[in-house]
Amino acid sequence: MAIPEKVTLVEVGPRDGFQLEPKIIPTDLKLEMITRLAASGLKYIQVASFVNPRRVPQMADADDLVRRLPQMPSVTFFGLALNAVGVERAWLSGLKCIEVSISASDAHSRRNAGLSYASALREGENMASIAAAAGMTVTASVQCAFGCVFEGEISMSRVLDAARMFTAAGVARLTLADTTGMGTPPAVERMLREFDTANLDLPVGLHLHDTRGLGLVNAAVGLRCGVSFFDTALGGMGGCPFVPGAAGNIATEDTAYLMSAMGVETGVDWKAVASCTRRLSAFLGRDLPGKLYRMA
Amino acid sequence: MAIPEKVTLVEVGPRDGFQLEPKIIPTDLKLEMITRLAASGLKYIQVASFVNPRRVPQMADADDLVRRLPQMPSVTFFGLALNAVGVERAWLSGLKCIEVSISASDAHSRRNAGLSYASALREGENMASIAAAAGMTVTASVQCAFGCVFEGEISMSRVLDAARMFTAAGVARLTLADTTGMGTPPAVERMLREFDTANLDLPVGLHLHDTRGLGLVNAAVGLRCGVSFFDTALGGMGGCPFVPGAAGNIATEDTAYLMSAMGVETGVDWKAVASCTRRLSAFLGRDLPGKLYRMA
Repeated sequence: MAIPEKVTLVEVGPRDGFQLEPKIIPTDLKLEMITRLAASGLKYIQVASFVNPRRVPQMADADDLVRRLPQMPSVTFFGLALNAVGVERAWLSGLKCIEVSISASDAHSRRNAGLSYASALREGENMASIAAAAGMTVTASVQCAFGCVFEGEISMSRVLDAARMFTAAGVARLTLADTTGMGTPPAVERMLREFDTANLDLPVGLHLHDTRGLGLVNAAVGLRCGVSFFDTALGGMGGCPFVPGAAGNIATEDTAYLMSAMGVETGVDWKAVASCTRRLSAFLGRDLPGKLYRMA
Repeated sequence: MAIPEKVTLVEVGPRDGFQLEPKIIPTDLKLEMITRLAASGLKYIQVASFVNPRRVPQMADADDLVRRLPQMPSVTFFGLALNAVGVERAWLSGLKCIEVSISASDAHSRRNAGLSYASALREGENMASIAAAAGMTVTASVQCAFGCVFEGEISMSRVLDAARMFTAAGVARLTLADTTGMGTPPAVERMLREFDTANLDLPVGLHLHDTRGLGLVNAAVGLRCGVSFFDTALGGMGGCPFVPGAAGNIATEDTAYLMSAMGVETGVDWKAVASCTRRLSAFLGRDLPGKLYRMA
Protein backbone atom coordinates (compact mmCIF):
# COMPACT_ATOMS: atom_id res chain seq x y z
CA MET A 1 0.00 0.00 0.00
CA ALA A 2 2.04 2.93 -1.29
CA ILE A 3 1.07 6.05 -3.21
CA PRO A 4 0.95 5.01 -6.89
CA GLU A 5 2.96 7.00 -9.42
CA LYS A 6 0.04 7.16 -11.81
CA VAL A 7 -3.67 7.07 -11.26
CA THR A 8 -6.59 6.87 -13.63
CA LEU A 9 -9.43 9.32 -13.32
CA VAL A 10 -12.66 7.79 -14.58
CA GLU A 11 -14.96 10.57 -15.76
CA VAL A 12 -18.54 9.88 -14.68
CA GLY A 13 -20.02 13.36 -15.10
CA PRO A 14 -21.94 12.62 -18.32
CA ARG A 15 -23.78 9.90 -16.40
CA ASP A 16 -23.75 10.69 -12.67
CA GLY A 17 -23.87 14.44 -13.25
CA PHE A 18 -26.08 14.83 -16.29
CA GLN A 19 -28.71 12.39 -14.98
CA LEU A 20 -29.71 14.70 -12.16
CA GLU A 21 -30.06 18.02 -13.93
CA PRO A 22 -33.64 19.30 -14.07
CA LYS A 23 -32.68 21.11 -17.28
CA ILE A 24 -32.09 18.20 -19.63
CA ILE A 25 -28.79 18.47 -21.46
CA PRO A 26 -29.28 18.05 -25.23
CA THR A 27 -27.49 15.14 -26.88
CA ASP A 28 -25.38 17.52 -28.97
CA LEU A 29 -24.05 19.28 -25.87
CA LYS A 30 -23.41 15.93 -24.20
CA LEU A 31 -21.38 14.87 -27.24
CA GLU A 32 -19.44 18.13 -27.26
CA MET A 33 -18.62 17.72 -23.56
CA ILE A 34 -17.64 14.06 -23.92
CA THR A 35 -15.39 14.86 -26.87
CA ARG A 36 -13.71 17.72 -25.03
CA LEU A 37 -13.30 15.63 -21.86
CA ALA A 38 -11.61 12.91 -23.89
CA ALA A 39 -9.35 15.52 -25.49
CA SER A 40 -8.37 16.74 -22.01
CA GLY A 41 -6.70 13.39 -21.33
CA LEU A 42 -9.46 11.34 -19.73
CA LYS A 43 -9.22 7.75 -20.98
CA TYR A 44 -12.35 6.33 -19.34
CA ILE A 45 -15.65 8.15 -19.72
CA GLN A 46 -18.97 6.88 -18.47
CA VAL A 47 -21.33 8.30 -21.04
CA ALA A 48 -24.79 7.19 -19.95
CA SER A 49 -26.80 4.93 -17.73
CA PHE A 50 -29.19 2.45 -19.28
CA VAL A 51 -32.10 2.85 -16.92
CA ASN A 52 -35.82 3.31 -17.36
CA PRO A 53 -36.22 6.47 -19.48
CA ARG A 54 -39.55 7.18 -17.81
CA ARG A 55 -37.84 7.32 -14.40
CA VAL A 56 -34.71 9.11 -15.65
CA PRO A 57 -35.59 11.14 -18.74
CA GLN A 58 -32.14 12.76 -18.67
CA MET A 59 -30.72 9.42 -19.86
CA ALA A 60 -33.43 8.67 -22.44
CA ASP A 61 -30.99 9.47 -25.27
CA ALA A 62 -28.42 6.90 -24.10
CA ASP A 63 -28.70 4.61 -27.15
CA ASP A 64 -28.64 7.50 -29.62
CA LEU A 65 -25.74 9.16 -27.79
CA VAL A 66 -23.62 6.00 -27.91
CA ARG A 67 -24.17 5.62 -31.66
CA ARG A 68 -22.91 9.16 -32.17
CA LEU A 69 -19.81 8.99 -29.94
CA PRO A 70 -16.57 10.25 -31.52
CA GLN A 71 -14.10 7.73 -32.92
CA MET A 72 -11.30 7.81 -30.34
CA PRO A 73 -9.69 4.37 -30.09
CA SER A 74 -7.54 5.31 -27.08
CA VAL A 75 -10.60 6.23 -25.01
CA THR A 76 -12.94 3.74 -23.39
CA PHE A 77 -16.52 4.96 -23.43
CA PHE A 78 -18.69 2.90 -21.16
CA GLY A 79 -22.18 2.74 -19.72
CA LEU A 80 -23.80 1.90 -16.42
CA ALA A 81 -26.41 -0.79 -15.87
CA LEU A 82 -28.45 -1.68 -12.80
CA ASN A 83 -30.17 -4.72 -14.32
CA ALA A 84 -30.00 -7.18 -17.21
CA VAL A 85 -32.25 -5.07 -19.41
CA GLY A 86 -29.75 -2.22 -19.09
CA VAL A 87 -26.85 -4.49 -20.03
CA GLU A 88 -28.71 -5.64 -23.13
CA ARG A 89 -29.56 -2.09 -24.17
CA ALA A 90 -25.93 -1.04 -23.71
CA TRP A 91 -24.74 -3.94 -25.85
CA LEU A 92 -27.32 -3.24 -28.56
CA SER A 93 -26.22 0.40 -28.65
CA GLY A 94 -22.75 -0.80 -29.58
CA LEU A 95 -20.86 -0.13 -26.32
CA LYS A 96 -17.94 -2.46 -25.70
CA CYS A 97 -17.66 -1.81 -21.98
CA ILE A 98 -20.23 -1.76 -19.19
CA GLU A 99 -20.18 -1.11 -15.47
CA VAL A 100 -22.66 -3.27 -13.61
CA SER A 101 -23.66 -1.86 -10.28
CA ILE A 102 -25.45 -3.03 -7.17
CA SER A 103 -26.00 -1.44 -3.76
CA ALA A 104 -24.76 -2.89 -0.49
CA SER A 105 -27.69 -1.23 1.23
CA ASP A 106 -30.95 -3.11 1.15
CA ALA A 107 -33.05 0.04 1.59
CA HIS A 108 -31.12 1.98 -1.07
CA SER A 109 -31.22 -0.97 -3.47
CA ARG A 110 -34.99 -1.20 -3.16
CA ARG A 111 -35.37 2.52 -3.92
CA ASN A 112 -32.75 2.70 -6.65
CA ALA A 113 -33.16 -0.62 -8.43
CA GLY A 114 -36.31 -2.14 -7.00
CA LEU A 115 -34.35 -5.10 -5.65
CA SER A 116 -33.50 -6.37 -2.17
CA TYR A 117 -29.79 -6.69 -1.45
CA ALA A 118 -29.99 -10.47 -1.86
CA SER A 119 -31.70 -10.11 -5.24
CA ALA A 120 -29.24 -7.40 -6.28
CA LEU A 121 -26.37 -9.78 -5.56
CA ARG A 122 -27.92 -12.34 -7.92
CA GLU A 123 -28.70 -9.64 -10.49
CA GLY A 124 -25.07 -8.47 -10.32
CA GLU A 125 -23.87 -11.95 -11.18
CA ASN A 126 -26.48 -12.19 -13.93
CA MET A 127 -25.50 -8.83 -15.44
CA ALA A 128 -21.79 -9.66 -15.38
CA SER A 129 -22.41 -13.00 -17.03
CA ILE A 130 -24.67 -11.60 -19.77
CA ALA A 131 -22.20 -8.82 -20.54
CA ALA A 132 -19.23 -11.18 -20.61
CA ALA A 133 -21.10 -13.60 -22.86
CA ALA A 134 -21.78 -10.69 -25.21
CA GLY A 135 -18.04 -10.01 -25.35
CA MET A 136 -18.15 -6.78 -23.40
CA THR A 137 -15.49 -5.66 -20.92
CA VAL A 138 -17.21 -5.69 -17.55
CA THR A 139 -16.41 -3.55 -14.53
CA ALA A 140 -18.45 -3.47 -11.35
CA SER A 141 -19.35 -1.16 -8.52
CA VAL A 142 -20.87 -1.47 -5.10
CA GLN A 143 -22.97 1.52 -4.01
CA CYS A 144 -23.35 2.67 -0.41
CA ALA A 145 -20.15 0.82 0.46
CA PHE A 146 -19.36 3.32 3.24
CA GLY A 147 -22.80 3.73 4.74
CA CYS A 148 -26.34 4.54 3.81
CA VAL A 149 -28.56 7.41 4.89
CA PHE A 150 -31.42 4.95 5.34
CA GLU A 151 -29.63 2.03 6.96
CA GLY A 152 -26.70 3.79 8.62
CA GLU A 153 -23.61 1.64 8.80
CA ILE A 154 -23.21 -1.03 6.14
CA SER A 155 -21.47 -4.19 7.25
CA MET A 156 -18.15 -4.76 5.62
CA SER A 157 -19.08 -8.38 4.97
CA ARG A 158 -21.84 -7.27 2.58
CA VAL A 159 -19.33 -5.26 0.56
CA LEU A 160 -16.84 -8.13 0.60
CA ASP A 161 -19.51 -10.65 -0.40
CA ALA A 162 -20.39 -8.49 -3.39
CA ALA A 163 -16.70 -8.15 -4.25
CA ARG A 164 -16.20 -11.94 -4.07
CA MET A 165 -19.24 -12.46 -6.30
CA PHE A 166 -17.90 -9.98 -8.86
CA THR A 167 -14.42 -11.51 -8.67
CA ALA A 168 -15.87 -14.94 -9.39
CA ALA A 169 -17.87 -13.42 -12.24
CA GLY A 170 -14.59 -12.24 -13.75
CA VAL A 171 -15.07 -8.46 -13.76
CA ALA A 172 -12.02 -6.39 -14.67
CA ARG A 173 -12.15 -4.09 -11.66
CA LEU A 174 -14.36 -2.98 -8.80
CA THR A 175 -15.30 0.50 -7.64
CA LEU A 176 -16.43 1.10 -4.08
CA ALA A 177 -18.96 3.90 -4.15
CA ASP A 178 -19.64 6.31 -1.31
CA THR A 179 -23.03 7.10 -2.79
CA THR A 180 -24.29 9.37 -0.04
CA GLY A 181 -20.96 10.85 1.06
CA MET A 182 -20.81 9.08 4.40
CA GLY A 183 -17.23 7.84 4.08
CA THR A 184 -14.63 9.14 6.51
CA PRO A 185 -10.84 8.83 6.41
CA PRO A 186 -10.74 6.00 8.99
CA ALA A 187 -13.63 4.14 7.30
CA VAL A 188 -12.02 4.40 3.86
CA GLU A 189 -8.69 3.20 5.22
CA ARG A 190 -10.30 0.34 7.16
CA MET A 191 -12.19 -0.84 4.08
CA LEU A 192 -9.13 -0.70 1.82
CA ARG A 193 -7.04 -2.59 4.36
CA GLU A 194 -9.77 -5.20 4.59
CA PHE A 195 -9.68 -5.61 0.81
CA ASP A 196 -5.91 -5.79 0.93
CA THR A 197 -6.13 -8.61 3.47
CA ALA A 198 -8.88 -10.38 1.53
CA ASN A 199 -6.46 -10.52 -1.39
CA LEU A 200 -9.16 -10.83 -4.04
CA ASP A 201 -6.94 -10.20 -7.04
CA LEU A 202 -9.34 -7.48 -8.14
CA PRO A 203 -8.22 -3.87 -8.67
CA VAL A 204 -10.28 -1.66 -6.35
CA GLY A 205 -11.09 1.99 -6.97
CA LEU A 206 -13.14 4.69 -5.28
CA HIS A 207 -16.23 6.68 -6.25
CA LEU A 208 -16.53 9.51 -3.73
CA HIS A 209 -19.24 12.07 -3.14
CA ASP A 210 -18.55 15.36 -1.41
CA THR A 211 -21.86 15.57 0.46
CA ARG A 212 -20.15 16.28 3.77
CA GLY A 213 -17.06 18.01 2.39
CA LEU A 214 -14.75 15.01 2.80
CA GLY A 215 -14.56 13.93 -0.85
CA LEU A 216 -10.99 14.95 -1.57
CA VAL A 217 -9.83 14.13 1.96
CA ASN A 218 -11.06 10.58 1.36
CA ALA A 219 -9.43 10.55 -2.09
CA ALA A 220 -6.09 11.48 -0.51
CA VAL A 221 -6.55 8.65 1.99
CA GLY A 222 -7.33 6.26 -0.86
CA LEU A 223 -4.24 7.40 -2.68
CA ARG A 224 -2.07 6.75 0.35
CA CYS A 225 -3.62 3.28 0.54
CA GLY A 226 -2.53 2.61 -3.04
CA VAL A 227 -5.82 3.15 -4.89
CA SER A 228 -5.05 3.81 -8.52
CA PHE A 229 -8.41 4.71 -10.03
CA PHE A 230 -11.02 7.20 -8.95
CA ASP A 231 -14.38 8.14 -10.39
CA THR A 232 -14.67 11.92 -10.79
CA ALA A 233 -17.15 14.28 -12.45
CA LEU A 234 -16.40 17.57 -14.16
CA GLY A 235 -17.25 20.49 -11.90
CA GLY A 236 -18.18 18.11 -9.09
CA MET A 237 -21.55 17.43 -10.70
CA GLY A 238 -23.86 14.74 -9.48
CA GLY A 239 -25.54 13.83 -6.27
CA CYS A 240 -28.15 11.52 -4.98
CA PRO A 241 -31.82 12.18 -5.68
CA PHE A 242 -32.70 10.57 -2.35
CA VAL A 243 -30.50 12.67 -0.07
CA PRO A 244 -31.49 16.26 0.78
CA GLY A 245 -28.55 18.59 0.24
CA ALA A 246 -26.52 15.81 -1.33
CA ALA A 247 -23.49 17.12 -3.14
CA GLY A 248 -21.83 15.81 -6.23
CA ASN A 249 -18.85 13.68 -7.01
CA ILE A 250 -15.33 14.87 -6.40
CA ALA A 251 -14.60 17.29 -9.24
CA THR A 252 -12.40 15.96 -12.04
CA GLU A 253 -10.34 19.15 -12.35
CA ASP A 254 -9.89 19.56 -8.57
CA THR A 255 -8.91 15.90 -8.19
CA ALA A 256 -6.44 16.11 -11.07
CA TYR A 257 -4.93 19.20 -9.43
CA LEU A 258 -4.69 17.44 -6.04
CA MET A 259 -3.03 14.41 -7.64
CA SER A 260 -0.58 16.57 -9.49
CA ALA A 261 0.18 18.51 -6.28
CA MET A 262 0.92 15.17 -4.64
CA GLY A 263 3.29 14.23 -7.43
CA VAL A 264 0.93 11.68 -8.97
CA GLU A 265 0.42 11.57 -12.72
CA THR A 266 -3.11 11.50 -14.17
CA GLY A 267 -2.47 12.58 -17.76
CA VAL A 268 -5.41 14.96 -17.37
CA ASP A 269 -5.16 18.64 -18.26
CA TRP A 270 -7.26 20.11 -15.44
CA LYS A 271 -7.53 23.48 -17.14
CA ALA A 272 -9.15 21.85 -20.15
CA VAL A 273 -11.64 20.09 -17.88
CA ALA A 274 -12.31 23.37 -16.04
CA SER A 275 -13.14 24.94 -19.35
CA CYS A 276 -15.77 22.21 -20.00
CA THR A 277 -17.21 22.92 -16.57
CA ARG A 278 -17.50 26.63 -17.35
CA ARG A 279 -19.37 25.79 -20.55
CA LEU A 280 -21.78 23.55 -18.69
CA SER A 281 -22.23 25.97 -15.79
CA ALA A 282 -23.17 28.65 -18.33
CA PHE A 283 -25.69 26.29 -19.99
CA LEU A 284 -27.22 25.29 -16.66
CA GLY A 285 -27.24 28.86 -15.42
CA ARG A 286 -25.77 28.06 -12.03
CA ASP A 287 -22.53 27.46 -10.18
CA LEU A 288 -21.32 23.90 -9.88
CA PRO A 289 -19.64 22.57 -6.73
CA GLY A 290 -16.08 22.39 -8.12
CA LYS A 291 -13.55 25.04 -7.19
CA LEU A 292 -10.93 25.36 -9.88
CA TYR A 293 -13.24 26.11 -12.79
CA ARG A 294 -14.04 29.45 -11.13
CA MET A 295 -10.48 30.65 -11.37
CA ALA A 296 -10.07 31.20 -15.11
CA MET B 1 4.35 14.75 15.18
CA ALA B 2 1.29 12.68 15.97
CA ILE B 3 -2.42 13.34 15.58
CA PRO B 4 -3.49 15.32 18.65
CA GLU B 5 -6.41 14.05 20.73
CA LYS B 6 -7.95 17.51 20.88
CA VAL B 7 -7.76 20.46 18.56
CA THR B 8 -8.99 24.00 18.87
CA LEU B 9 -11.07 25.51 16.10
CA VAL B 10 -10.57 29.26 15.98
CA GLU B 11 -13.67 30.86 14.45
CA VAL B 12 -12.69 33.66 12.08
CA GLY B 13 -15.95 34.00 10.13
CA PRO B 14 -17.10 37.22 11.81
CA ARG B 15 -13.88 38.82 10.60
CA ASP B 16 -12.59 36.96 7.52
CA GLY B 17 -16.09 36.13 6.30
CA PHE B 18 -18.14 39.18 7.20
CA GLN B 19 -15.50 41.62 5.90
CA LEU B 20 -16.03 40.54 2.31
CA GLU B 21 -19.79 40.56 2.01
CA PRO B 22 -21.12 43.26 -0.32
CA LYS B 23 -24.30 43.24 1.78
CA ILE B 24 -23.03 44.65 5.06
CA ILE B 25 -24.08 42.54 8.03
CA PRO B 26 -25.74 44.68 10.73
CA THR B 27 -24.03 44.79 14.13
CA ASP B 28 -27.05 43.13 15.77
CA LEU B 29 -26.86 40.14 13.43
CA LYS B 30 -23.09 39.92 13.96
CA LEU B 31 -23.69 39.82 17.72
CA GLU B 32 -26.38 37.17 17.35
CA MET B 33 -24.03 35.04 15.24
CA ILE B 34 -21.07 35.49 17.59
CA THR B 35 -23.19 34.58 20.60
CA ARG B 36 -24.56 31.48 18.91
CA LEU B 37 -21.10 30.44 17.67
CA ALA B 38 -19.78 30.72 21.22
CA ALA B 39 -22.71 28.66 22.47
CA SER B 40 -21.88 25.97 19.91
CA GLY B 41 -18.59 25.32 21.72
CA LEU B 42 -16.14 27.62 19.95
CA LYS B 43 -13.73 29.06 22.52
CA TYR B 44 -11.84 31.48 20.27
CA ILE B 45 -13.74 33.87 18.04
CA GLN B 46 -12.18 36.55 15.91
CA VAL B 47 -14.86 39.21 15.99
CA ALA B 48 -13.51 42.03 13.84
CA SER B 49 -10.53 43.50 12.10
CA PHE B 50 -9.35 46.98 13.05
CA VAL B 51 -8.59 48.31 9.63
CA ASN B 52 -9.39 51.51 7.79
CA PRO B 53 -13.22 51.77 7.78
CA ARG B 54 -13.10 53.66 4.50
CA ARG B 55 -11.35 50.73 2.83
CA VAL B 56 -13.36 48.04 4.63
CA PRO B 57 -16.77 49.47 5.58
CA GLN B 58 -17.92 45.99 6.64
CA MET B 59 -15.64 46.34 9.70
CA ALA B 60 -16.50 49.97 10.50
CA ASP B 61 -18.55 48.86 13.52
CA ALA B 62 -15.62 46.98 15.12
CA ASP B 63 -15.30 49.21 18.19
CA ASP B 64 -19.05 49.31 18.81
CA LEU B 65 -19.35 45.55 18.28
CA VAL B 66 -16.63 44.78 20.82
CA ARG B 67 -18.30 46.95 23.46
CA ARG B 68 -21.52 45.00 22.98
CA LEU B 69 -20.05 41.47 23.04
CA PRO B 70 -21.77 39.01 25.37
CA GLN B 71 -20.23 38.28 28.77
CA MET B 72 -18.82 34.79 28.30
CA PRO B 73 -15.68 34.37 30.43
CA SER B 74 -14.80 30.98 28.94
CA VAL B 75 -14.64 32.42 25.40
CA THR B 76 -11.79 34.50 24.04
CA PHE B 77 -13.03 37.17 21.66
CA PHE B 78 -10.20 38.72 19.74
CA GLY B 79 -9.48 41.13 16.92
CA LEU B 80 -7.11 41.36 14.00
CA ALA B 81 -4.67 44.19 13.38
CA LEU B 82 -2.40 44.88 10.42
CA ASN B 83 -0.71 47.94 11.95
CA ALA B 84 -0.14 49.79 15.22
CA VAL B 85 -3.19 51.97 14.76
CA GLY B 86 -5.32 48.84 14.62
CA VAL B 87 -3.76 47.46 17.81
CA GLU B 88 -4.48 50.72 19.61
CA ARG B 89 -8.09 50.76 18.42
CA ALA B 90 -8.56 47.15 19.53
CA TRP B 91 -7.16 47.97 22.96
CA LEU B 92 -9.31 51.08 23.32
CA SER B 93 -12.39 49.05 22.40
CA GLY B 94 -11.71 46.87 25.42
CA LEU B 95 -10.47 43.67 23.73
CA LYS B 96 -8.01 41.66 25.78
CA CYS B 97 -6.59 39.64 22.91
CA ILE B 98 -5.29 40.64 19.49
CA GLU B 99 -3.88 38.82 16.48
CA VAL B 100 -1.18 40.81 14.73
CA SER B 101 -0.68 39.80 11.15
CA ILE B 102 1.87 40.37 8.42
CA SER B 103 2.28 38.92 4.94
CA ALA B 104 5.28 36.91 3.79
CA SER B 105 4.63 38.15 0.26
CA ASP B 106 6.03 41.55 -0.56
CA ALA B 107 3.47 42.17 -3.32
CA HIS B 108 0.53 41.03 -1.19
CA SER B 109 1.76 43.06 1.80
CA ARG B 110 1.92 46.22 -0.30
CA ARG B 111 -1.65 45.69 -1.52
CA ASN B 112 -3.11 44.56 1.78
CA ALA B 113 -1.25 46.71 4.31
CA GLY B 114 0.63 49.27 2.23
CA LEU B 115 3.96 47.94 3.51
CA SER B 116 6.92 46.16 1.93
CA TYR B 117 7.77 42.78 3.49
CA ALA B 118 10.75 44.32 5.30
CA SER B 119 8.56 47.10 6.74
CA ALA B 120 5.84 44.58 7.65
CA LEU B 121 8.39 42.59 9.63
CA ARG B 122 9.24 45.73 11.66
CA GLU B 123 5.56 46.60 11.99
CA GLY B 124 4.83 43.08 13.26
CA GLU B 125 7.40 43.52 16.02
CA ASN B 126 6.04 46.99 16.79
CA MET B 127 2.42 45.73 16.96
CA ALA B 128 3.36 42.81 19.23
CA SER B 129 5.29 45.08 21.55
CA ILE B 130 2.55 47.73 21.80
CA ALA B 131 -0.11 45.09 22.48
CA ALA B 132 2.02 43.32 25.09
CA ALA B 133 2.79 46.61 26.82
CA ALA B 134 -0.95 47.28 26.95
CA GLY B 135 -1.41 43.95 28.71
CA MET B 136 -3.13 42.19 25.81
CA THR B 137 -2.65 38.54 24.91
CA VAL B 138 -0.94 38.60 21.53
CA THR B 139 -1.12 35.97 18.81
CA ALA B 140 0.39 36.34 15.36
CA SER B 141 -0.13 35.18 11.83
CA VAL B 142 1.86 35.12 8.62
CA GLN B 143 -0.22 35.51 5.47
CA CYS B 144 0.68 33.95 2.12
CA ALA B 145 2.88 31.42 3.94
CA PHE B 146 2.25 28.81 1.23
CA GLY B 147 2.53 30.96 -1.85
CA CYS B 148 1.15 34.12 -3.36
CA VAL B 149 -0.83 34.64 -6.53
CA PHE B 150 1.34 37.66 -7.33
CA GLU B 151 4.78 36.37 -6.35
CA GLY B 152 4.29 32.61 -6.78
CA GLU B 153 6.39 30.59 -4.38
CA ILE B 154 7.28 32.22 -1.07
CA SER B 155 10.64 31.25 0.36
CA MET B 156 10.42 29.30 3.57
CA SER B 157 13.10 31.49 5.09
CA ARG B 158 10.76 34.50 4.95
CA VAL B 159 8.14 32.59 6.88
CA LEU B 160 10.71 31.35 9.38
CA ASP B 161 12.18 34.83 9.80
CA ALA B 162 8.75 36.18 10.62
CA ALA B 163 8.19 33.31 13.05
CA ARG B 164 11.52 34.01 14.78
CA MET B 165 10.65 37.69 15.06
CA PHE B 166 7.25 36.85 16.59
CA THR B 167 8.82 34.30 18.94
CA ALA B 168 11.30 36.90 20.18
CA ALA B 169 8.40 39.33 20.59
CA GLY B 170 6.75 36.81 22.90
CA VAL B 171 3.52 36.05 21.04
CA ALA B 172 1.43 33.18 22.43
CA ARG B 173 1.08 31.31 19.16
CA LEU B 174 1.52 31.64 15.41
CA THR B 175 -0.88 30.84 12.59
CA LEU B 176 0.44 30.11 9.11
CA ALA B 177 -2.10 31.41 6.65
CA ASP B 178 -2.69 30.03 3.17
CA THR B 179 -4.32 33.30 2.16
CA THR B 180 -4.86 32.48 -1.50
CA GLY B 181 -5.36 28.73 -1.19
CA MET B 182 -2.10 27.75 -2.84
CA GLY B 183 -1.04 25.22 -0.21
CA THR B 184 -0.74 21.58 -1.18
CA PRO B 185 -0.35 18.51 1.02
CA PRO B 186 3.42 18.21 0.37
CA ALA B 187 3.97 21.97 0.90
CA VAL B 188 2.03 21.98 4.17
CA GLU B 189 3.92 18.93 5.42
CA ARG B 190 7.28 20.39 4.36
CA MET B 191 6.58 23.66 6.16
CA LEU B 192 5.43 21.98 9.35
CA ARG B 193 8.48 19.70 9.38
CA GLU B 194 10.69 22.75 8.90
CA PHE B 195 9.04 24.40 11.91
CA ASP B 196 9.45 21.19 13.88
CA THR B 197 13.15 21.20 13.09
CA ALA B 198 13.51 24.93 13.83
CA ASN B 199 12.21 24.14 17.32
CA LEU B 200 10.95 27.66 18.00
CA ASP B 201 8.94 26.81 21.12
CA LEU B 202 5.93 28.49 19.49
CA PRO B 203 2.66 26.65 18.91
CA VAL B 204 1.90 26.71 15.19
CA GLY B 205 -1.59 26.54 13.67
CA LEU B 206 -3.08 26.71 10.19
CA HIS B 207 -5.43 29.11 8.45
CA LEU B 208 -6.53 27.42 5.22
CA HIS B 209 -8.51 28.66 2.28
CA ASP B 210 -10.37 26.33 -0.04
CA THR B 211 -9.74 28.27 -3.24
CA ARG B 212 -8.50 25.19 -5.08
CA GLY B 213 -10.54 22.63 -3.19
CA LEU B 214 -7.68 21.42 -1.00
CA GLY B 215 -8.67 23.16 2.26
CA LEU B 216 -9.74 20.10 4.22
CA VAL B 217 -7.13 17.88 2.58
CA ASN B 218 -4.48 20.28 3.88
CA ALA B 219 -6.19 20.37 7.30
CA ALA B 220 -5.99 16.57 7.49
CA VAL B 221 -2.28 16.77 6.60
CA GLY B 222 -1.79 19.40 9.32
CA LEU B 223 -3.56 17.19 11.79
CA ARG B 224 -1.31 14.27 10.97
CA CYS B 225 1.67 16.58 11.50
CA GLY B 226 0.39 17.40 14.99
CA VAL B 227 -1.20 20.81 14.40
CA SER B 228 -3.63 21.48 17.22
CA PHE B 229 -5.36 24.70 16.17
CA PHE B 230 -7.04 25.68 12.94
CA ASP B 231 -8.77 28.84 11.83
CA THR B 232 -12.18 28.08 10.37
CA ALA B 233 -15.18 30.14 9.29
CA LEU B 234 -18.84 29.20 9.56
CA GLY B 235 -20.18 28.07 6.19
CA GLY B 236 -16.72 28.39 4.65
CA MET B 237 -17.17 32.15 4.34
CA GLY B 238 -14.33 34.44 3.37
CA GLY B 239 -11.98 34.79 0.51
CA CYS B 240 -9.48 37.19 -0.84
CA PRO B 241 -10.61 40.39 -2.52
CA PHE B 242 -7.54 40.24 -4.77
CA VAL B 243 -8.03 36.75 -6.18
CA PRO B 244 -10.67 36.11 -8.85
CA GLY B 245 -12.78 33.12 -7.88
CA ALA B 246 -11.14 32.92 -4.48
CA ALA B 247 -13.02 30.70 -2.10
CA GLY B 248 -13.43 31.02 1.61
CA ASN B 249 -11.90 29.46 4.65
CA ILE B 250 -12.42 25.84 5.54
CA ALA B 251 -15.93 25.67 6.99
CA THR B 252 -16.16 25.41 10.78
CA GLU B 253 -18.92 22.80 10.73
CA ASP B 254 -17.26 20.69 8.01
CA THR B 255 -13.90 20.84 9.80
CA ALA B 256 -15.48 19.90 13.14
CA TYR B 257 -17.16 16.95 11.40
CA LEU B 258 -13.86 15.87 9.79
CA MET B 259 -12.05 16.07 13.11
CA SER B 260 -14.74 14.10 14.86
CA ALA B 261 -14.66 11.49 12.06
CA MET B 262 -10.92 11.20 12.66
CA GLY B 263 -11.48 10.67 16.37
CA VAL B 264 -10.24 14.13 17.34
CA GLU B 265 -12.15 16.20 19.88
CA THR B 266 -13.02 19.82 19.13
CA GLY B 267 -15.80 20.47 21.65
CA VAL B 268 -17.76 22.05 18.79
CA ASP B 269 -21.34 21.04 18.01
CA TRP B 270 -21.22 21.18 14.21
CA LYS B 271 -24.98 21.08 13.88
CA ALA B 272 -25.27 24.26 15.96
CA VAL B 273 -22.70 25.95 13.71
CA ALA B 274 -24.54 24.72 10.61
CA SER B 275 -27.68 26.33 11.95
CA CYS B 276 -25.82 29.70 12.21
CA THR B 277 -24.69 29.24 8.61
CA ARG B 278 -28.26 28.65 7.46
CA ARG B 279 -29.35 31.86 9.19
CA LEU B 280 -26.57 33.82 7.50
CA SER B 281 -27.12 32.21 4.11
CA ALA B 282 -30.78 33.27 4.34
CA PHE B 283 -29.78 36.84 5.25
CA LEU B 284 -27.25 37.04 2.41
CA GLY B 285 -29.62 35.41 -0.02
CA ARG B 286 -27.09 32.99 -1.41
CA ASP B 287 -25.44 29.64 -0.83
CA LEU B 288 -22.20 29.59 1.12
CA PRO B 289 -19.34 27.23 0.24
CA GLY B 290 -19.74 24.87 3.22
CA LYS B 291 -21.37 21.49 2.72
CA LEU B 292 -22.93 20.31 5.96
CA TYR B 293 -25.22 23.27 6.57
CA ARG B 294 -27.21 22.19 3.48
CA MET B 295 -28.18 18.90 5.05
CA ALA B 296 -30.61 19.97 7.75
